[in-house]
Amino acid sequence: MTHRPPDLTLPDHVAPVALDKAYRLLNHGPTVLVSATHGGHTNVMAAAWACVLDFTPPKVTVVIDKATATRRLVEASGQFALQLPTAAMASLTTALGTDSAMQVPDKLHKHAVPLFQPPGCEVPMVTGCAGWLVCRLIPEERNQQVYDLFIGEVTSAWADARVFENGRWQFDQAPDALRTIHHVAGGHYLVSGKGIQG
Amino acid sequence: MTHRPPDLTLPDHVAPVALDKAYRLLNHGPTVLVSATHGGHTNVMAAAWACVLDFTPPKVTVVIDKATATRRLVEASGQFALQLPTAAMASLTTALGTDSAMQVPDKLHKHAVPLFQPPGCEVPMVTGCAGWLVCRLIPEERNQQVYDLFIGEVTSAWADARVFENGRWQFDQAPDALRTIHHVAGGHYLVSGKGIQG
Repeated sequence: MTHRPPDLTLPDHVAPVALDKAYRLLNHGPTVLVSATHGGHTNVMAAAWACVLDFTPPKVTVVIDKATATRRLVEASGQFALQLPTAAMASLTTALGTDSAMQVPDKLHKHAVPLFQPPGCEVPMVTGCAGWLVCRLIPEERNQQVYDLFIGEVTSAWADARVFENGRWQFDQAPDALRTIHHVAGGHYLVSGKGIQG
Repeated sequence: MTHRPPDLTLPDHVAPVALDKAYRLLNHGPTVLVSATHGGHTNVMAAAWACVLDFTPPKVTVVIDKATATRRLVEASGQFALQLPTAAMASLTTALGTDSAMQVPDKLHKHAVPLFQPPGCEVPMVTGCAGWLVCRLIPEERNQQVYDLFIGEVTSAWADARVFENGRWQFDQAPDALRTIHHVAGGHYLVSGKGIQG
C-alpha cells in the first residue's frame, strides 16, 4: 500500500530556526525520529542516540543500525532529517522504533504517519513534532561501518513556535502534550520537565 | 592550592549498575560532567554533548573541545568518567563548564568539588551525582582531531539507588533535587520530567 505523499506546505505553528540556534533543538538530548527518502521510498525510524556535534556550522551525530531500512535511504541519498516527537507521539515513536520497513514495508501507512515537505526541502518530515533538523550526510566510512555512527551538517531547521521561541524551549508556557521525550528503555520515556537556571 | 584527595569509599546510596544496563544511565540525554586524571592532576568539566553509542559492550561518545584541560588528561591517561549532575548541582555544572583549569588551575578547589574513587577505579568521580560511567578511551584519532569526538567503552557504572533501580530511572519516587538536568544554553536547563509509557 502506498503512503500518501507529504504535504507541501508548512503546518500551523511551524517556524524556521536560525542555523546558529539549531543546536539548541537537540542540546537537551531528546529522542528523535529519523526520516530519509530515495528513489520514491521514504521511511521514518526512532533513534535515542542522537547528539549535537558542533555549533557553527551545526553538526549532529546519530546512530543508525545496519538492520534498518532508513540507513539504506540515508546512504543512498546523502540526506536525513532528525525530528523531535512530542509526549503525545510517544506510542507512535515506539511503534516507529519497533516495526522495521524491512519486515513491514507499509510501516508509514500502517501507523498513519503524517508527513510534510516544504519547497526546497529534500527530506519529508513528520508533522506534529516539536522541532526538525534537516541534515546533509558528512560521509565518514569508518564511523558508519565500525560504529553505525552517522554525522550530518544541519542545512535547515524548524520548530513549533508554541514551544521554541527566541532560541529557547518554552515548554512551561504550552500544553504538556507538546513536550519532547527521552527514551529510557522498552517504550518508557522521561518527558522534558521544568526549566531552571543554574 | 591543592584540592583534597578523593574519598576512597562509596558514598551513601551509590550502588553498582550492571554493564548491560549501563547505557540506560545516558539514554535519556542528560548533561554530564567529564572527569579525568593523569600525573597527579585531576579535572572535571561539563559537557552537554554526550551520547550512547552501543549496548554491549556499552560505548559512549562525548565531545571534548581542544581548549579544555580535561582533554589533555583524557588523552594522556586513556580514561575518563561521565557522571550525571542533579538539579541541585545545576549551578556547579555551569561553573564547571565556564571556568577552565587552563585559566583557573584551582578550579576544583574554588568550587569545592567533592570527589570519590572506590578501590579499583582509576578515575575520580564527583560525589552527589545521580549516575557514573567509567570509560576506557577507544582511540580514534581522526574523530578526535577533526570533530573533537571521543569514544569510550564503559568499564564500570554506578547510580544513586534512590533514583535508579532495577535498570530504570525512578525519579517520580525521589526528591526533585535528585533529577538529572539537560542543558539548553547559557546555564538554562530542562530537568528530567515525569515518566510515561508509549
